[in-house]
Amino acid sequence: MAFDRLIENIVNMQNPTVAGLDPKLDYIPSSIKEKCFAEYGKNLEGAAAALFEFNKALIDALYDIVPAVKPQAAYYEMYGWQGVKALYDTIAYAKSKGMFVITDGKRNDIGTTMEAYAAAHLGKTDIAGESTEAFGADALTVNGYLGTDGIKPLAKTCNDCDKGIFVLVKTSNPSSGELQDMKLCTQETVYEHMGRMCEDWGSKLMGSYSYSAVGAVVGATYPQQLAEMREKLPHTFFLVPGYGAQGGGAEDVKNAFDDNGLGAIINSSRGIMCAWKNQDGMTENDFAAAARAEAIRMRDEILKTIGEIKFG
Amino acid sequence: MAFDRLIENIVNMQNPTVAGLDPKLDYIPSSIKEKCFAEYGKNLEGAAAALFEFNKALIDALYDIVPAVKPQAAYYEMYGWQGVKALYDTIAYAKSKGMFVITDGKRNDIGTTMEAYAAAHLGKTDIAGESTEAFGADALTVNGYLGTDGIKPLAKTCNDCDKGIFVLVKTSNPSSGELQDMKLCTQETVYEHMGRMCEDWGSKLMGSYSYSAVGAVVGATYPQQLAEMREKLPHTFFLVPGYGAQGGGAEDVKNAFDDNGLGAIINSSRGIMCAWKNQDGMTENDFAAAARAEAIRMRDEILKTIGEIKFG
Repeated sequence: MAFDRLIENIVNMQNPTVAGLDPKLDYIPSSIKEKCFAEYGKNLEGAAAALFEFNKALIDALYDIVPAVKPQAAYYEMYGWQGVKALYDTIAYAKSKGMFVITDGKRNDIGTTMEAYAAAHLGKTDIAGESTEAFGADALTVNGYLGTDGIKPLAKTCNDCDKGIFVLVKTSNPSSGELQDMKLCTQETVYEHMGRMCEDWGSKLMGSYSYSAVGAVVGATYPQQLAEMREKLPHTFFLVPGYGAQGGGAEDVKNAFDDNGLGAIINSSRGIMCAWKNQDGMTENDFAAAARAEAIRMRDEILKTIGEIKFG
Repeated sequence: MAFDRLIENIVNMQNPTVAGLDPKLDYIPSSIKEKCFAEYGKNLEGAAAALFEFNKALIDALYDIVPAVKPQAAYYEMYGWQGVKALYDTIAYAKSKGMFVITDGKRNDIGTTMEAYAAAHLGKTDIAGESTEAFGADALTVNGYLGTDGIKPLAKTCNDCDKGIFVLVKTSNPSSGELQDMKLCTQETVYEHMGRMCEDWGSKLMGSYSYSAVGAVVGATYPQQLAEMREKLPHTFFLVPGYGAQGGGAEDVKNAFDDNGLGAIINSSRGIMCAWKNQDGMTENDFAAAARAEAIRMRDEILKTIGEIKFG
């Protein structure tokens, strides 16, 4: 139920991090690209094949020490439906290795349309009485600007299919405050209001470890807000972007965790995918080994500030 | 530039409406489904083939009288990458018939990720020096919760590739007020604040008819807010959902237009796709003819309240 499987992965591996899979073609070694272009052509199909090959090597290097991956939908969509097929293949491969998969799609809509997104990314699609997983991730990031009509249609899928969502609350980017930090007449900020709605939405979708199926995205780059939110939203599991490339460090993300070291998962995308650039003597062909070394370094750095992770 | 091509289509056809293409399998006649299942199997591929065949028939029935179509991404994603290929095929077919295509994806992210969405849906994707259109729509709906970092990456694509975006401002659903109507300390509501940001974002992307490339989504179900927004956002073109199935009528949407009958395009999805249900003696096999009849009725009903549409 809810994020139980994610939490179990985190405790078993003693690692509260997730590897972002944002496979821009620029990040992929020439050797992989050339091979794929030779086989499929210098086109969307060839690019998509390179994306999947790159991701597969990263997953192989990480699956026994990192509990989850987070493919960012935009980097697949930019390579057309062929790229979207690579997203499907990536999700299936990560799941086959036991990883928890969070599709970062920030989807949002209402009613039957949001139900369609729920079926697409988390649940199953009915085709004349036969049901199939279209993408089959374990969790999806969503945007709550449309209110309850945009979140409720996900509840049934979360409940029936044992899945979770992360709602954008306070994002990691510099301009996130333009709307999110605005103060309401109620004295709450917009992001506090959104956070409180997450607790409400999750109240009927509780898991075994006191966290609900409705999580929140709260950025590492705003450590004070992260601490506030951790205190105010005790049942909301956090997905924390902004560590590494965007400037957040281990001291900043410490605030995202509860006393048991649970309650949050910290994302690193470029930091892991492009780790070879920061490691002496490594070339782009060493990207997988470098990614593993960086994932270990990041895990150890965060564990040092939060201690052993316990079920509580 | 910006929405010039859309505006020219609207004036030439004297029709300020857009047909939503939300092809749930339930809406598609059995004859089409059976044919596609027989050819491709009762699976995602068969479903996707039925989606495209249905859309093609609708486009054939509408392209000479309706200026634009709005495929809703969720209904393609729920049929997997195969469904997403049907989205690509639908966009290409609608464009080949001269229609303006608005992909309703409500995408949102920041920086290079938002650039990836811009490339995916509006611009071109670079593959080792060769550039290809991944989906190639004319406009994309987006969600501005992340602020300027989420919108600015789209500006270059809108400018260079002659495309536009519609930012969610006041959506048509019952619970849209939970966040959007909240009053800020500045006395503005959240949606007013978002609307003002749209005018700002668009100020450097002006087209020939005094509307910018940054439009807004404002629902037909809130006619008073629609009137307010029309007055406060003189350079922001509106995409108006909520007509028909959601309860908005011609009197309600009248407020979305300027004195020349420009400034807005009114969407109908189910009302057009499922029009045969409301027409005497028609069966599901008459869906295309019924869609055309309903599109004409809707056009005439709206034109009666706004008069002739002029360039101004």
